[in-house]
Amino acid sequence: MDVIGFIEKKRDGGAHAPGELEAFVRAFALGKVPEYQAAAWLMAVYFNGLSDEELKEFTLALARSGDTMSFGDELCIVDKHSTGGVGDKITLLLVPLAAACGLSVAKLSGPGLGFTGGTVDKLESIPGFNTHLSSRDFLNQVTRIGCAISGHSADLAPAEGKFYSLRDVTGTVPSMPLICSSIVSKKIAGGADAFVFDVKCGSGAFMRDHESAEALANGLVSLSKSLGKKAAALITDMDQPLGEWVGNAVEVLEAVRVLQGEGPEDVREVAVALAGAMVSLGKGISFDDGCILARRKIDDGSALEKMKELVEAQGGRGDVCENPDSVLKIAPESFVLNAVSGGRVERIEARSIGEGVKRLGGGRMELGESIDLAVGVKLLVKMGCCVKAGTPLLEVRYTNGEKLENSLPYFEKAFSVEDTNCDSSRNGEEGKRSFVLGKVE
Amino acid sequence: MDVIGFIEKKRDGGAHAPGELEAFVRAFALGKVPEYQAAAWLMAVYFNGLSDEELKEFTLALARSGDTMSFGDELCIVDKHSTGGVGDKITLLLVPLAAACGLSVAKLSGPGLGFTGGTVDKLESIPGFNTHLSSRDFLNQVTRIGCAISGHSADLAPAEGKFYSLRDVTGTVPSMPLICSSIVSKKIAGGADAFVFDVKCGSGAFMRDHESAEALANGLVSLSKSLGKKAAALITDMDQPLGEWVGNAVEVLEAVRVLQGEGPEDVREVAVALAGAMVSLGKGISFDDGCILARRKIDDGSALEKMKELVEAQGGRGDVCENPDSVLKIAPESFVLNAVSGGRVERIEARSIGEGVKRLGGGRMELGESIDLAVGVKLLVKMGCCVKAGTPLLEVRYTNGEKLENSLPYFEKAFSVEDTNCDSSRNGEEGKRSFVLGKVE
Repeated sequence: MDVIGFIEKKRDGGAHAPGELEAFVRAFALGKVPEYQAAAWLMAVYFNGLSDEELKEFTLALARSGDTMSFGDELCIVDKHSTGGVGDKITLLLVPLAAACGLSVAKLSGPGLGFTGGTVDKLESIPGFNTHLSSRDFLNQVTRIGCAISGHSADLAPAEGKFYSLRDVTGTVPSMPLICSSIVSKKIAGGADAFVFDVKCGSGAFMRDHESAEALANGLVSLSKSLGKKAAALITDMDQPLGEWVGNAVEVLEAVRVLQGEGPEDVREVAVALAGAMVSLGKGISFDDGCILARRKIDDGSALEKMKELVEAQGGRGDVCENPDSVLKIAPESFVLNAVSGGRVERIEARSIGEGVKRLGGGRMELGESIDLAVGVKLLVKMGCCVKAGTPLLEVRYTNGEKLENSLPYFEKAFSVEDTNCDSSRNGEEGKRSFVLGKVE
Repeated sequence: MDVIGFIEKKRDGGAHAPGELEAFVRAFALGKVPEYQAAAWLMAVYFNGLSDEELKEFTLALARSGDTMSFGDELCIVDKHSTGGVGDKITLLLVPLAAACGLSVAKLSGPGLGFTGGTVDKLESIPGFNTHLSSRDFLNQVTRIGCAISGHSADLAPAEGKFYSLRDVTGTVPSMPLICSSIVSKKIAGGADAFVFDVKCGSGAFMRDHESAEALANGLVSLSKSLGKKAAALITDMDQPLGEWVGNAVEVLEAVRVLQGEGPEDVREVAVALAGAMVSLGKGISFDDGCILARRKIDDGSALEKMKELVEAQGGRGDVCENPDSVLKIAPESFVLNAVSGGRVERIEARSIGEGVKRLGGGRMELGESIDLAVGVKLLVKMGCCVKAGTPLLEVRYTNGEKLENSLPYFEKAFSVEDTNCDSSRNGEEGKRSFVLGKVE
């Protein structure tokens, strides 16, 4: 393969001939194309993009670079992917909720990236829960009870992982075709028939503004459809952490609470909307009808019942769905961060909260590090709230005093309280805010 | 150093802060910045360029990455650089010609690149000639007789060499700031006070059209001036090989012939113009007066005399300047390529001639390979000539029948003879053609 000519073609805005991208991905995966040539090509793609045809071929080549899952033709399997945020425990309740609506949900999860937590880590906090199923057990469980959640093997789309690592250190992460191919290739390898994407938008997300979030949502949906899948995307708010709790065990607690009919409104709203989109794809009904069904499945307790079934099927203690407080190990020691001055809470930087929880021990500073599942934080206020000097802002659950010290600067700088326009009568307005910002079908 | 942030800044069209480029070049030269990151940065520069300030800092950092030459303040040293072409023996006669005009000329030459030959290889064909002087001998010789030609050490601007190798395999060669910094950094390290650039233009050159050659000429001159050097550039014709002979010993033969007052007009014209530009810079007289002086120094034999002095100072047989035919070893066996059909010679592809000579043994197919200095070709026609079927086009001097066979296809395809508008009265027009196409001061 003439790699220099291949790079030059993309550099000059040309299109790769059919088969070239597949050969390139294969050669790179085998180490036959050196990283410096792949890096130059990635930067050329950053500037000149990929055509629809190129994007399809590149995505498929990534998807087929390792193991692939297959569920046969009987079931219509629906999968969900979030672009990542802080406090994003949606998968924990959405998978049983969608299954309670009658869908077959096969959810393969990756580890947490950067300042965001990973679903697999969160599930590890349920005593006995097996987060890594063999593909056979995974398939069997989806067939039997309608859902399963498992960390995926390192051999799912391994070429994608190799490209991602290189992009991460060469300034080539924020490229729409590279982001879309990265996400969709793993979903394709996961074998589902329909995908719902939760594209997070705001200061705590990769996509900071609505325009770029919408572009990503469109890109993911059209690429998935061009590869023969059903797909939809929701754009959801990540201007502040989702829900109240951020951590591992504490996020399981919050997920259970929402299925128990309690818990914060934003988590419920986002989960219902995503379930609605999944049901709409999987059953061919309208999105609104899908949401109504999802709400009913929470209200009548069947989503919680399905969660218990899921936990028990994977070896975990099902009573976490009844008494989460007593089953989950949550750090008993707490520290409360108070407002220094009064005013309106203008911003709660999700990234900063995420970085703080990481330093508290709740996330990995290095690959392979073990994490402290018991620690976490609870937001005692949300954006728009009015506070006085001394009002509690954040409750920190910790196990190690030194780590608490390291994390506090991140928590402190996360809150911006401004002494303007603070009118306590506006506190109630937060409740009317919508957390689902857009939808692409 | 935050290399990812550095790459992202250039990717996003920003300017590097003072000192950043120097730190980057130093870290890359030491192997502390991996090649994949440097490759991504090079591609970002391909798209977003470098500002004048960035270009200066990058060029100086490359120039200072290894040994540098210095001649003290007494002499004004003039250096010359050619962007490379086929049959380009200009340095061989220009260096003594400019010295005969009273200049101090210190010429450091690199090896041949790609399809072009190297001055050092050509000089090796003069028996006894020492092509690698120590810096002390080099400086002393320039002081004593006004000129010296030496292959430069591998430690002259070594970071430039490292970047060049990476550009060569990552599709980042044709970037104006990268080309200019590459060329000028070596000239800066060579220590001269004034540079004349011979920018080749045409199908046998890196710059194929006049516009891009002019852009390169302007870039080289303005960068050199911004670094405190005097500089000028000529754009000269490389639509066909320069002169009649292409090879090593045969090009020395032709260089001597021109200084003897014989030899082809194009070689004489280009050499006189470059000498005129050098004299103009070095002595502060007009370009036209410089050319007049240069012509006189050929006509009165003093340039040939200076060439003899140069050859003898570097240990070579000075009588090469009197009887080049008997001193130089030129392959006695010859093969003549004849025209298959009659018509006008529309093109003589310089690249193809260069590739043919390489395969004949006259150039390196791999780095470090030894070459056959005795082989070469003589163009028996030039572009615009009218030929009949059977008219000799090219005389090939060879030593190995198998290599001759390998080279012939390249020679055959170099000539395009077209059966149109052939009017033998037009043959004479070639003589009026100018080979100096432009000038930048």
